[in-house]
Amino acid sequence: MSNTAGQIIKCRAAVAWEAGKPLVIEEVEVAPPKAGEVRLKILYTSLCHTDVYFWEAKGQTPLFPRIFGHEAGGIVESVGEGVTHLKPGDHALPVFTGECGECPHCKSEESNMCDLLRINTDRGVMIHDQESRFSIKGKPIYHFVGTSTFSEYTVVHAGCVAKINPEAPLDKVCVLSCGICTGLGATINVAKPKPGSSVAVFGLGAVGLAAAEGARISGASRIIGVDLVSSRFELAKKFGVNEFVNPKDHNKPVQEVIAEMTNGGVDRSVECTGSIQAMISAFECVHDVIESELGWGVAVLVGVPSKDDAFKTHPTNFLNERTLKGTFYGNYKPRTDLPNVVEKYMRGELELEKFITHTVPFSEINKAFDLMLKGESIRCIIRMDE
Amino acid sequence: MSNTAGQIIKCRAAVAWEAGKPLVIEEVEVAPPKAGEVRLKILYTSLCHTDVYFWEAKGQTPLFPRIFGHEAGGIVESVGEGVTHLKPGDHALPVFTGECGECPHCKSEESNMCDLLRINTDRGVMIHDQESRFSIKGKPIYHFVGTSTFSEYTVVHAGCVAKINPEAPLDKVCVLSCGICTGLGATINVAKPKPGSSVAVFGLGAVGLAAAEGARISGASRIIGVDLVSSRFELAKKFGVNEFVNPKDHNKPVQEVIAEMTNGGVDRSVECTGSIQAMISAFECVHDVIESELGWGVAVLVGVPSKDDAFKTHPTNFLNERTLKGTFYGNYKPRTDLPNVVEKYMRGELELEKFITHTVPFSEINKAFDLMLKGESIRCIIRMDE
Repeated sequence: MSNTAGQIIKCRAAVAWEAGKPLVIEEVEVAPPKAGEVRLKILYTSLCHTDVYFWEAKGQTPLFPRIFGHEAGGIVESVGEGVTHLKPGDHALPVFTGECGECPHCKSEESNMCDLLRINTDRGVMIHDQESRFSIKGKPIYHFVGTSTFSEYTVVHAGCVAKINPEAPLDKVCVLSCGICTGLGATINVAKPKPGSSVAVFGLGAVGLAAAEGARISGASRIIGVDLVSSRFELAKKFGVNEFVNPKDHNKPVQEVIAEMTNGGVDRSVECTGSIQAMISAFECVHDVIESELGWGVAVLVGVPSKDDAFKTHPTNFLNERTLKGTFYGNYKPRTDLPNVVEKYMRGELELEKFITHTVPFSEINKAFDLMLKGESIRCIIRMDE
Repeated sequence: MSNTAGQIIKCRAAVAWEAGKPLVIEEVEVAPPKAGEVRLKILYTSLCHTDVYFWEAKGQTPLFPRIFGHEAGGIVESVGEGVTHLKPGDHALPVFTGECGECPHCKSEESNMCDLLRINTDRGVMIHDQESRFSIKGKPIYHFVGTSTFSEYTVVHAGCVAKINPEAPLDKVCVLSCGICTGLGATINVAKPKPGSSVAVFGLGAVGLAAAEGARISGASRIIGVDLVSSRFELAKKFGVNEFVNPKDHNKPVQEVIAEMTNGGVDRSVECTGSIQAMISAFECVHDVIESELGWGVAVLVGVPSKDDAFKTHPTNFLNERTLKGTFYGNYKPRTDLPNVVEKYMRGELELEKFITHTVPFSEINKAFDLMLKGESIRCIIRMDE
């Protein structure tokens, strides 16, 4: 056991005091893990759009002061009572969703949406006792999605912590905690393109590029990137995208453009924007829309829609044997599957370096927010020891 | 070769001279098969709703005089040039859709929607030369979906003829040409319920009962039948349906009723009515709607909607890992797969007898129409030799 086990740890954390205001590096107190929990020393964390989204709190329930952050790599400092799959010193990735191992979803091969530990963006406390483990001078600071990795130490439910190969570089594999696995798994686990097939990816942000990476790894021969920002196309080539469509360049629906390019439609599509129109296009662009009104395509929805959106299509599009699926975290079960994704990186099959466009010291974490807001970064790694 | 090969055959056929008017048994002339075609002696045929639908021609392009019929069993009388997979004397089932074996759909494992021989309800002639093989005193009579089995002899494209085990009783397996395979395959090939799982079937007509039969064969433990006509429930028990919901008995949407019955939703649903509201319910009733808004269910659409219908749901229903698929002819490839379905019957796994509620002699074919219009029959077999 480390000599801090059972003790309150004082350390640095980046605290969001108010919606949309720069984070402030503060000294926080981190309580020891309770039963079923783990305290992690975070070495590297990265910024994801979801952090920015809830930090801006536009249309979300504002919950402040709060410690954001949910993509990270770290080392187990100590474990609470009853935790058996992790021990101090283990290398680990915290995840915003969990795997309790006991609920019907965890026991089903078909779901990764754990009943107990599924993402809850409104809860700012630990599930065990509805209290925070973070405080400043006795005043609690809220958690974020059970991870709060913008802190040198954090407490996480053990079901949300994946133990990984200690040889894996944490400054690279930390990006697997959220966006990259979401896109990668959407293609590899859900769309499942065959070698030589065609895949359209809607949205070339981090998740979409990860979906393209999944298509590249799967051996797809045509990977068509769809984005409203043409400047993203050059970068996307690194991820296997070899054809591009900007819907703004065409006078007809993008699904028709894609159908024409592909003699009737793509074999698979993956929608990573959350725009309802893109969802409909992604569904209708799978094989094959125009020529013969029939198809065998599979469309996978990843992007999160607005709450009032309605997905709308003619049911004949389904009857012609198209399939529409959604996915959450790429259908990966965090504890079971993440170690294998790390191994895929270690074997050189999955290339994570190309997602990492920037790094900043923890003291300059607000720069990571600036880069993302300007659209300049895919992933910016934040080095916690600086 | 039979001694009728190459000759025009005069035989009896039930001709629909006008929309909605009783069929008339006439002597017709059936030309020999041309290249790529087969002439079949039909021994048994059965009546399907699709025949009635196009005979009524409400909202359809009327095409008369026409010989309907598309579920049948027969024996090959002669074959046209270039036909190699069939020879005179083979036992065979004609099918309204085909398998040319050469097009991208036939070559894909994922599709049975042959480019060349896919169903075309508006075409009343042979695809080869756009002419009819039926005539009465020199005047052509139109074909129906390439099969026209309400005739003692008919000419069919060889790609639409499945060669089957000659031991199989044609008066039973003839029902596999359309509705039974459509429902059966929707469950077995597309929904793929696991043993012990729950399946909701919307619509307890022939197709829905076949979907239930597929669930029974798959080992589903809860098979929930949904129908607006409660009198159908008793009969449905024979097909494995063990729970029943009549949406009229409830003040809330049927998807909520099913979710309550099943602790959040069924594992699979199969929609066999074509009603847009039933389609939405079938999708939203899969695991799980009310409690936690998450799921792993798969919904399969079989019923044919009206052309102006729009399928509409909140995209979150997909993101929670539900899957929505459509199917056509149960995803069976006629020539490749139908012989195996026949074997499934021969082994006693698939029970066809219970679908057959009536039989009539050919001379009384209009009784079969009456029984179906009154909702009294599931399948009525028409014996061609009487």
